Amino acid sequence: MSNRRMMVVGAHSADFVWRAAGAVACHTAAGGEAVVVALSYGERGESGKLWEEPGQTEDNVKRIRHAEAEKAAGAVGARFEALDLGDYPLEPGKEAIDRLAEMMRGFAPNVVLTHPEKDPFNPDHPAAHAAVAKARLLTSGAGVASGFRTAPPSEFLVFEPHQPELCGFVPTVYVDISAVFEQKVEAMSAMQAQQYLQDYYRQRADQRGNHARKVTGDSGIRQAEAFHRLLPNVVGAL
Amino acid sequence: MSNRRMMVVGAHSADFVWRAAGAVACHTAAGGEAVVVALSYGERGESGKLWEEPGQTEDNVKRIRHAEAEKAAGAVGARFEALDLGDYPLEPGKEAIDRLAEMMRGFAPNVVLTHPEKDPFNPDHPAAHAAVAKARLLTSGAGVASGFRTAPPSEFLVFEPHQPELCGFVPTVYVDISAVFEQKVEAMSAMQAQQYLQDYYRQRADQRGNHARKVTGDSGIRQAEAFHRLLPNVVGAL
Amino acid sequence: MSNRRMMVVGAHSADFVWRAAGAVACHTAAGGEAVVVALSYGERGESGKLWEEPGQTEDNVKRIRHAEAEKAAGAVGARFEALDLGDYPLEPGKEAIDRLAEMMRGFAPNVVLTHPEKDPFNPDHPAAHAAVAKARLLTSGAGVASGFRTAPPSEFLVFEPHQPELCGFVPTVYVDISAVFEQKVEAMSAMQAQQYLQDYYRQRADQRGNHARKVTGDSGIRQAEAFHRLLPNVVGAL
Amino acid sequence: MSNRRMMVVGAHSADFVWRAAGAVACHTAAGGEAVVVALSYGERGESGKLWEEPGQTEDNVKRIRHAEAEKAAGAVGARFEALDLGDYPLEPGKEAIDRLAEMMRGFAPNVVLTHPEKDPFNPDHPAAHAAVAKARLLTSGAGVASGFRTAPPSEFLVFEPHQPELCGFVPTVYVDISAVFEQKVEAMSAMQAQQYLQDYYRQRADQRGNHARKVTGDSGIRQAEAFHRLLPNVVGAL
Amino acid sequence: MSNRRMMVVGAHSADFVWRAAGAVACHTAAGGEAVVVALSYGERGESGKLWEEPGQTEDNVKRIRHAEAEKAAGAVGARFEALDLGDYPLEPGKEAIDRLAEMMRGFAPNVVLTHPEKDPFNPDHPAAHAAVAKARLLTSGAGVASGFRTAPPSEFLVFEPHQPELCGFVPTVYVDISAVFEQKVEAMSAMQAQQYLQDYYRQRADQRGNHARKVTGDSGIRQAEAFHRLLPNVVGAL
Amino acid sequence: MSNRRMMVVGAHSADFVWRAAGAVACHTAAGGEAVVVALSYGERGESGKLWEEPGQTEDNVKRIRHAEAEKAAGAVGARFEALDLGDYPLEPGKEAIDRLAEMMRGFAPNVVLTHPEKDPFNPDHPAAHAAVAKARLLTSGAGVASGFRTAPPSEFLVFEPHQPELCGFVPTVYVDISAVFEQKVEAMSAMQAQQYLQDYYRQRADQRGNHARKVTGDSGIRQAEAFHRLLPNVVGAL
Repeated sequence: MSNRRMMVVGAHSADFVWRAAGAVACHTAAGGEAVVVALSYGERGESGKLWEEPGQTEDNVKRIRHAEAEKAAGAVGARFEALDLGDYPLEPGKEAIDRLAEMMRGFAPNVVLTHPEKDPFNPDHPAAHAAVAKARLLTSGAGVASGFRTAPPSEFLVFEPHQPELCGFVPTVYVDISAVFEQKVEAMSAMQAQQYLQDYYRQRADQRGNHARKVTGDSGIRQAEAFHRLLPNVVGAL
Repeated sequence: MSNRRMMVVGAHSADFVWRAAGAVACHTAAGGEAVVVALSYGERGESGKLWEEPGQTEDNVKRIRHAEAEKAAGAVGARFEALDLGDYPLEPGKEAIDRLAEMMRGFAPNVVLTHPEKDPFNPDHPAAHAAVAKARLLTSGAGVASGFRTAPPSEFLVFEPHQPELCGFVPTVYVDISAVFEQKVEAMSAMQAQQYLQDYYRQRADQRGNHARKVTGDSGIRQAEAFHRLLPNVVGAL
Repeated sequence: MSNRRMMVVGAHSADFVWRAAGAVACHTAAGGEAVVVALSYGERGESGKLWEEPGQTEDNVKRIRHAEAEKAAGAVGARFEALDLGDYPLEPGKEAIDRLAEMMRGFAPNVVLTHPEKDPFNPDHPAAHAAVAKARLLTSGAGVASGFRTAPPSEFLVFEPHQPELCGFVPTVYVDISAVFEQKVEAMSAMQAQQYLQDYYRQRADQRGNHARKVTGDSGIRQAEAFHRLLPNVVGAL
Repeated sequence: MSNRRMMVVGAHSADFVWRAAGAVACHTAAGGEAVVVALSYGERGESGKLWEEPGQTEDNVKRIRHAEAEKAAGAVGARFEALDLGDYPLEPGKEAIDRLAEMMRGFAPNVVLTHPEKDPFNPDHPAAHAAVAKARLLTSGAGVASGFRTAPPSEFLVFEPHQPELCGFVPTVYVDISAVFEQKVEAMSAMQAQQYLQDYYRQRADQRGNHARKVTGDSGIRQAEAFHRLLPNVVGAL
Repeated sequence: MSNRRMMVVGAHSADFVWRAAGAVACHTAAGGEAVVVALSYGERGESGKLWEEPGQTEDNVKRIRHAEAEKAAGAVGARFEALDLGDYPLEPGKEAIDRLAEMMRGFAPNVVLTHPEKDPFNPDHPAAHAAVAKARLLTSGAGVASGFRTAPPSEFLVFEPHQPELCGFVPTVYVDISAVFEQKVEAMSAMQAQQYLQDYYRQRADQRGNHARKVTGDSGIRQAEAFHRLLPNVVGAL
Repeated sequence: MSNRRMMVVGAHSADFVWRAAGAVACHTAAGGEAVVVALSYGERGESGKLWEEPGQTEDNVKRIRHAEAEKAAGAVGARFEALDLGDYPLEPGKEAIDRLAEMMRGFAPNVVLTHPEKDPFNPDHPAAHAAVAKARLLTSGAGVASGFRTAPPSEFLVFEPHQPELCGFVPTVYVDISAVFEQKVEAMSAMQAQQYLQDYYRQRADQRGNHARKVTGDSGIRQAEAFHRLLPNVVGAL
């Protein structure tokens, strides 16, 4: 049984579902612990269906989105935490970054997942990336004794954005999610406000599954998720 | 025990020693099988000390280089094969690439290592890369039934060149070679014609060990080798 | 009515169908003329289903592939021509490039489409790119009077490869193929040897349609194809 | 007649003249509407000649620069608006970005032009780019119903910087400004504070005209302007 | 005798020693003047050994680090100045950048050295780069008369980071530091808090010396330092 | 007086004039020796005006081009040599590369100039680059005793192509050619077959002069040429 800890940080509460829920499910299925952190609920910019209802309010949207994300996280065996920093624009300041770093020091994740550095279609995703990257470095320090509490450096990967080639995203890891795909489907179906994305991300899973089959020649792979690992992987053998 | 097969292809008979002997030793120590293929002996361009002897001939240089490479390969548990295609310039034609592809179809390696695509300091390294990349694709075909014999696609990585930043080399994998470092030292010391490189590559192993410690926070790592993985890694979990 | 001429050059006879048939159909629907050139039939490496039949021969595969490509081209209003240069490996020599250049001088295309420069999954696609790029330059010359026949320089774009991020492909043009999508489906269904690709490329068309909707906000777009324009677009106004 | 709307945003009041006045003139000549927004007057850093006068003040420089920019905008058929945020350094904060986004929501431009993301010679140009990119995304939202007012996503291009290769600028669009070049000359001549730039940008127009002739073989092109389109162009046919 | 002025700006007080002390010593040995500016003391994150002592305080660490840096600067003939802005995180605001620009206007350096723009292992190095790049541009203005005091534009290079390939660092200049290497050793030995780095950077000096020998064929070079020049070098002849 | 030796290799006999004649003149003015090598005469593709004459032949074009290049080389103090390998396409084979390497071994240049690696507008320029890069490496060997004659490694730079951003050309060196500009003008005027390029390259010299003034703040620079240095510059001090 794995005892690895994974932390997934999204700009909005639903981001982790579409892009990394399969990897979370693989992780927890292997015995690992996972926490999903949402910097905001995506309440203003990414809650399409909810804003079509007359008389909708931000507070109500947040409440619904919190419940949905909690349910989705549960479907893949993860805990959900929200920082409620606001969206469109998300602008994590010094205090928010410190809070995130404190969460990292406490949880001491082995692997951290978030958005890529660049996204010409979304103002909040790069803001989330920058906050996570900074908090992660403030967590580990320079690898020597420090004047502040530290936790060991984690692996650091970014998940797939909506239009990968335009975000500088190059897949370097495909996670085979065939065995846990139904869990990802369940997590996605919890996201009522963005139902239109479910087919889109089912297709992505098929597409990356196809890619992973091509890379390996392993015809048993059906669905996969793509990640870009930002720091070298340290291994005992190839 | 691993039953993985590794093939390392170098432009010259000594290339594998400096850059990948540690990874070979880790591989064979874990029970894997390894073959080292030399496209040439580096007889004209990379046999410094030998050419300082008066009356030296190409044939004699090749004989010595063959023996040295065989000994070095043995020190890390690998078999050595030479194609003797000539160096400075190395120019693998259609026939040589077919021969290499046939070796790959026979051996069916899980992982293939060679030089990076670009090297502004050496004319033979990019030629070797191109030949290996092409032979590898002619080996696996397109992943469907073909009009020729195939073997499954292998993982494909390049080892570290002399001046990495100028060759477009970006390390994405560090192999911890601490446990097998003495074997690498033994392999290096078999290379009499290039003794001046032994200190240089000891330092490289220390340097990449330092980098791998920084990445992981694992103070037990002493030496490492750096590789650039060219195709996504397909994994079951992060 | 447009009187523009489009030339699409693929390494294998079916390549144009999956990646550019929609753009061809839009072009001919607008009154333009289109010719599809296949450098090879993909007879050895990309004719999966056909090689599963016992007693299959290269000649028979070529015959079938020719008929399929002709039918597919017809479905999108294009003429089909084959150079039959052989595949896996495709290696267009001086004579083949001259022949292609002569075809370009005769047809004088306004726009040329082919594979990207790089593809780590296919040895023939980059070979095709290099041949087309060279033939195109030998066609137009340097824009001054020459010692050989010329045709005006064409627009030059590459179509989407199988794993775009790993081929350096960055979409700079999305063609809205919603109105002609049934023609593309018909062209794809003509390719009996690669039926397994039809669902895959239906999904790609949906995906790029989704991307194009996001770029424009135009909810009327259903399917699209992605292209990477290699030379600046010259326009009269933005 | 076009009914497209173009918004050009410059860090300093004269920036649009040198780099995009031709494209603005083509746009308005075709019947389109254009507005030029200046984030600052370039009063401290880019008003060379004016500061050579003894007793010069910032307020006076701003007044002169406003009049010049208004006249130049008029010469190419555009309206001029100034945000007067200060220069050297220009640092658009949350409020300024909101104001810009409100202008975009009101005007609903089809195309937005600004500086490239990077410029090692000017501290204000990248600041302007970042502000425009963010305001543009806050204008369009995520393409679904939102908790704030939106306008459809615009095309997004950057104009040519002073030393393009050092700014990551790669031309992907040349606009043929031959027919409106006299208007651009008139706009440039309105900029008394930077007269030394007029010859420089006449030469640029000739140079890009030469490039556009080479790309197309169209000898009728005399002057052009270069742009880098940041998001894919969605078209009905190639 | 040279009368050139060099300014080296580090995020932490010891940064200049490891990466640029040799170039500083060459500069002062040739008669030039050098000033080292430390934005912080690295008191929280980079003072390993000092924090192992029980009862250590930030103020005491700063005092020790100041003395060490002063001694190291002296060993290579430079003056040391500290801005004491705090580290982990270093966040130079408007005021700090103005202060740095004022120092640059007063000293009018011919060459400025600092960290690369990117460093996935250290949060303070990119912050230092951004501050220096901005201060440098606010110092020189746009090369015309300005509404503020200016100094001529300096050459601008970045020194080698810990893991160069992962920081986008590409060496474009090697400085031969063989003649002054003992001075660099002396400067390094002044840094008691980071003794573990001395062997590491001795090896780096050997490695870059090896690279510089390879580039030139000059066997007299023993140690070198690597730099990445960010702006073109203007010369009278090649 | 300098005793450095410069070799400039162009695909066509006139290439060196437009792009590097100023740097050659600076070099010879300082006492250095320079040789210009033309791989072809550009007789088929780049001799515009000559082919407008009725009854023109390749042999006659070559004769005229040889005389023009000799005259132009003389104007900047260089010797001219032609390999007459043919153009459009230029395809230097093994023998031609050996011949070029032999010339390099004999002349032992300190600096070599040629075309960039990539040019989407000209098929011969990249072919020339590849030949020169290979010949240069076969000249110097690996920096150890070899089985063939060697000469020391030279500095290696590429000159500016027609549309630099599209060729991956990034200027890293500007040579101030103000003092020798009349010699460059004289060399350009020797090229009767390409008179239309003279104004174009006068403007380029002004443009790069403007860029070099901006980089240095030195208002004395009037004209410059831009180069991209491919290998690190080894210097004694910054």
